[in-house]
Amino acid sequence: MSLQNSPDRPISVHDLEEFCCDVLRRVGVSETDARATADVLVTTDTCGVFTHGTKNLRGYVRRLQAGGLRARAKPRIVAEGPAWAMIDGDSGLGMVTSTFAMRVAMEKAKLTGVGYVGVRNSCHFGAAGFYAALAARENLIGIAVANDIPSVTAPGARGPVLGSNPLAFAVPTGDDRPILMDMATSTVAGGKVFAAAALNQKIPAGWVVDAAGKPTTDPSLFPHTATLTPMAGHKGYGLALLIETLSAIVTGAAMTHQVLSWSFDDPARATNHGAAFIAIDVGAMMSLKEFHARVAHLVREIRSTPRAQDCERVFIPGEMEWERRAQALVSGIELPPDVLASLRGLSELGFKSLLFGA
Amino acid sequence: MSLQNSPDRPISVHDLEEFCCDVLRRVGVSETDARATADVLVTTDTCGVFTHGTKNLRGYVRRLQAGGLRARAKPRIVAEGPAWAMIDGDSGLGMVTSTFAMRVAMEKAKLTGVGYVGVRNSCHFGAAGFYAALAARENLIGIAVANDIPSVTAPGARGPVLGSNPLAFAVPTGDDRPILMDMATSTVAGGKVFAAAALNQKIPAGWVVDAAGKPTTDPSLFPHTATLTPMAGHKGYGLALLIETLSAIVTGAAMTHQVLSWSFDDPARATNHGAAFIAIDVGAMMSLKEFHARVAHLVREIRSTPRAQDCERVFIPGEMEWERRAQALVSGIELPPDVLASLRGLSELGFKSLLFGA
Repeated sequence: MSLQNSPDRPISVHDLEEFCCDVLRRVGVSETDARATADVLVTTDTCGVFTHGTKNLRGYVRRLQAGGLRARAKPRIVAEGPAWAMIDGDSGLGMVTSTFAMRVAMEKAKLTGVGYVGVRNSCHFGAAGFYAALAARENLIGIAVANDIPSVTAPGARGPVLGSNPLAFAVPTGDDRPILMDMATSTVAGGKVFAAAALNQKIPAGWVVDAAGKPTTDPSLFPHTATLTPMAGHKGYGLALLIETLSAIVTGAAMTHQVLSWSFDDPARATNHGAAFIAIDVGAMMSLKEFHARVAHLVREIRSTPRAQDCERVFIPGEMEWERRAQALVSGIELPPDVLASLRGLSELGFKSLLFGA
Repeated sequence: MSLQNSPDRPISVHDLEEFCCDVLRRVGVSETDARATADVLVTTDTCGVFTHGTKNLRGYVRRLQAGGLRARAKPRIVAEGPAWAMIDGDSGLGMVTSTFAMRVAMEKAKLTGVGYVGVRNSCHFGAAGFYAALAARENLIGIAVANDIPSVTAPGARGPVLGSNPLAFAVPTGDDRPILMDMATSTVAGGKVFAAAALNQKIPAGWVVDAAGKPTTDPSLFPHTATLTPMAGHKGYGLALLIETLSAIVTGAAMTHQVLSWSFDDPARATNHGAAFIAIDVGAMMSLKEFHARVAHLVREIRSTPRAQDCERVFIPGEMEWERRAQALVSGIELPPDVLASLRGLSELGFKSLLFGA
């Protein structure tokens, strides 16, 4: 399968999904797991979060070919109780393991009210928000967190201490657009620094500090000599530590400097990322009708709040992303140049026939 | 009972507790509930978090006398499942209801692995971290959140949208000093702005915006015409919305502008704050010995990280507070002038014999 694309010619969601599935199948991933992975990556692109979508397919494929990611991995529950489970990801794709894990958390929540599922032997899982939204679309509050290689410093430190450990949550609204927040606990996600570097753009001071602990606007220093700053100082540092606890300390996953980079480190070795997923069954606690009405009341209230000067709109978290997605489903996705370059880079890995525009 | 105190003469922890209990008993609070409340407030003072400790006793007493807080309230479970419960606080002291609620969450967690307990008809509960630490001291991860009257704006808005909705967590370490983080989702807690106003000090630009949405350094404008900013912009706004969901939307508590201020509004009316408490029984998921060892490994690693210039130490969240508490238990608490003034202010409420230094 070959896709033609140029920046002024959007790619249809369907074609991009089929492209991802085809690539993944060719490196041994099952149809089901390829579909699950493509769903995460392409949905993320449709939301405009291009740092965490199909741009990363090339890196995942490199690891699948080298064996650090196992194409035929089977994530399995290795321990469980009424409201929790621990999952060994078998060094498979983070998207496959995480989708499985959130579904287990949702099942637990439907039985007991709450489900907490920890994951070890996973890898980079894309956008945390995807899994949170998975829960919300079945009327559960969803929370997803993960650890990563240290790239963020702490107050008083100069080098990396913790990962940019993401936190996402989604709140059901009764339609297919849950309230959705997906945030790094760094001031910005590393992907944004990489994206600026790829585009030869400067970054705002405050995003990273250099080897001396001073702010720098040069994204190319990251991650070799520069370190991300924690969001809101000690608060981001603290939240990242909570996330490390939930996703790695208690799951038995690799912690901090023991995690391998899914993009930089030897692709033949497993990264052993950790993750955790929480689902809360609000329908067990309050009628869904009342819950949705209360959410709708709050949303209306926020939308009608007085606006700051020069501001047209107060957005509900996720609203911007769902609007982009609705547009993409109709008109296709305009992939930015760095994503296109990454997808074209699959040719280095032996996917010549799949090249965009080649 | 009368306490003598001056700023250069610390008050013993025991004496301050007895003072609080005596005051609370005199307004009809039971011995048990007075002890529970004094424990929260005085522990908070020992940790040096004076904005959330005994300084607020005067405000609570005013509401107890006026009836907005019911001295003989009995918080009770009104609905529950295996891993969750909903508690009606019966318009009692937030400290009493919250201690009860976290203990229920801990019981649920010991049975199922995880416990989520929502609370309605509560009031200001002091420092969220107290309840998180309660869980951690029994080897559970503890999380505590609550809503409050809107005092924080949102990106694009100019007035208050959500409360400074606190989030606290504690991770057990195997000793009596859990990793502990207690943060407002505003850039700073409103209490810090009040404290600056009481001391006639300016505040840094960025803490609040004025009625036009512009930064101001005048703390006296808050909360009447100024509004707190969310920490890290849209991230703090998003987290506050998650907290509003967990503590108020699903609990049936008052939401946003329906919450009454525990300090400003008619003390004869119930504030109907919401809160939520989560406990996770790590010992069910991994041997406690291994969990503690993994936490200790991470703590050692963080402590040994290269330090920034002019920085002597990288603190673990909560470390500073536990060190202050250890010192206070030995040497007593040096209450700052605004706390002393507030405690002296109890005389206006008919506690002449209890005056500090009177």
